[in-house]
Amino acid sequence: MIHSFLLVGQSNMAGRGFFKDVPMICNEHIKVLRNGRWQIMMEPIHYDRPYAGIGPAASFAAAWCKKNENEEIGLIPCADGGTSLDDWSVDGPLFKHAILQAKLAKQSSKLEGILWHQGESDTNSENYKLYNEKFSKIVEAFRKELDEPDIPIIIGEIGDYLASGFLGAYFPEYAEVNKELLEFAKTNKNCYFVTALGLTPNPDGIHLNSVSQRIFGLRYFEAYDKLQHILKPVEGEEDAINIDNKRTLTKNEKMTILENQFAGGHISLKEYQLQISKINS
Amino acid sequence: MIHSFLLVGQSNMAGRGFFKDVPMICNEHIKVLRNGRWQIMMEPIHYDRPYAGIGPAASFAAAWCKKNENEEIGLIPCADGGTSLDDWSVDGPLFKHAILQAKLAKQSSKLEGILWHQGESDTNSENYKLYNEKFSKIVEAFRKELDEPDIPIIIGEIGDYLASGFLGAYFPEYAEVNKELLEFAKTNKNCYFVTALGLTPNPDGIHLNSVSQRIFGLRYFEAYDKLQHILKPVEGEEDAINIDNKRTLTKNEKMTILENQFAGGHISLKEYQLQISKINS
Repeated sequence: MIHSFLLVGQSNMAGRGFFKDVPMICNEHIKVLRNGRWQIMMEPIHYDRPYAGIGPAASFAAAWCKKNENEEIGLIPCADGGTSLDDWSVDGPLFKHAILQAKLAKQSSKLEGILWHQGESDTNSENYKLYNEKFSKIVEAFRKELDEPDIPIIIGEIGDYLASGFLGAYFPEYAEVNKELLEFAKTNKNCYFVTALGLTPNPDGIHLNSVSQRIFGLRYFEAYDKLQHILKPVEGEEDAINIDNKRTLTKNEKMTILENQFAGGHISLKEYQLQISKINS
Repeated sequence: MIHSFLLVGQSNMAGRGFFKDVPMICNEHIKVLRNGRWQIMMEPIHYDRPYAGIGPAASFAAAWCKKNENEEIGLIPCADGGTSLDDWSVDGPLFKHAILQAKLAKQSSKLEGILWHQGESDTNSENYKLYNEKFSKIVEAFRKELDEPDIPIIIGEIGDYLASGFLGAYFPEYAEVNKELLEFAKTNKNCYFVTALGLTPNPDGIHLNSVSQRIFGLRYFEAYDKLQHILKPVEGEEDAINIDNKRTLTKNEKMTILENQFAGGHISLKEYQLQISKINS
């Protein structure tokens, strides 16, 4: 039975890290829900926008796999870039879509957690004052609709780089939102906070870069695994980009990567056939 | 109100054409359903596999836009590579997922057609003998579940290149499946057949290349628009790759393309800012 996790929030959960900056994670124990069925995960996990990239979920899953040998984890991508808490209201399409996906996933997996990262779109106009109230309704509805009253919800902090980017003026109240996120996690059952301390962005000053996303994923896992708030960097996290690349790839993983290269038009038929015979020999 | 179309079937509906082979289609009147909401379409439309590419739906939509000026079309991507008719059975996850997506889409659009391309995975073991029976159940269920008893269903033929590729031995009965597809379209209400005559594949010998997919999309549109079977190439289709690139891009489209380049890490912040000022001037 696959152990599944619902991924919700806005762009930094969907992922905008650049692929070229970190080693690929391809692990046949990590699946992703596509059209209601489980496929071996390749990044990007989300496809909310054409430029979706590295998010926190792949290294979260790789860390989970190290702890749970021979088990399988499944990721349910439902985060969507630029979305406010109002966009996530329980009568709106984002929430409904996430519930539909999670229910479909539950037919072939055990739903074990919800990873949430959202807030950037609520860092102005004193929206933080309503964060707790709005988010409470969403969390309550997730647990009720999915019939998972005690499911852990892991809540990531917004990076404190946000106000200093070239669009920083759009995010004046990020610190206030972070206070609300921490307070929410501390005062609601099975909700855990994950610090973004020290994480750094892409040149846009908004989106976590790939190296930071790999680290963030480890912190999310630490919070889930220990069921506690993560308020400071995790020991060994500086090596996060290597979380899954000291392992020898299985034949199945090698074939997945090769198929991706060939079907994507990056290698010739001759090269593809040569590589297949190498993998099989 | 957006006019929406459900895309279902296997890999040649999902799309495997290479991006480098055809001009991009970016038209703000063409939307795609992402997380239950409509976004400006960029290809790939599907993301069933990491190597999803050009399918027939983008040029279908561009042709629709030429006919329906100032209207908006919405695409609902639910095709999934390598899937057999059994995988699409009405109690399975693919069918359920497609229904959920289409129902969600219907909350903010008018569903006007279903584009189907499937069959490659049923071209052996005499599976064609059961194609009509199995497909009838699926079509009936789509119409019933979506409360669209008369919705047009456009059914594409399998390319006759299939048996001559390096994996051709896996598809011995493609001609028999094509006969079933044509027969089905001819004998069921509001079902229309689209020939794959003359279309050509990627080096894999399985997936339609980008140029052929652009042509195929025009043929699908011709069948939908005229509500008739398309049994031979459409007049002017040889120019299909230019279906949408003689138009001047709107400011919104230019920004969408620029955002994609910057958020994807393909241009620097400096270049991004320079281009923004050019677009705005």
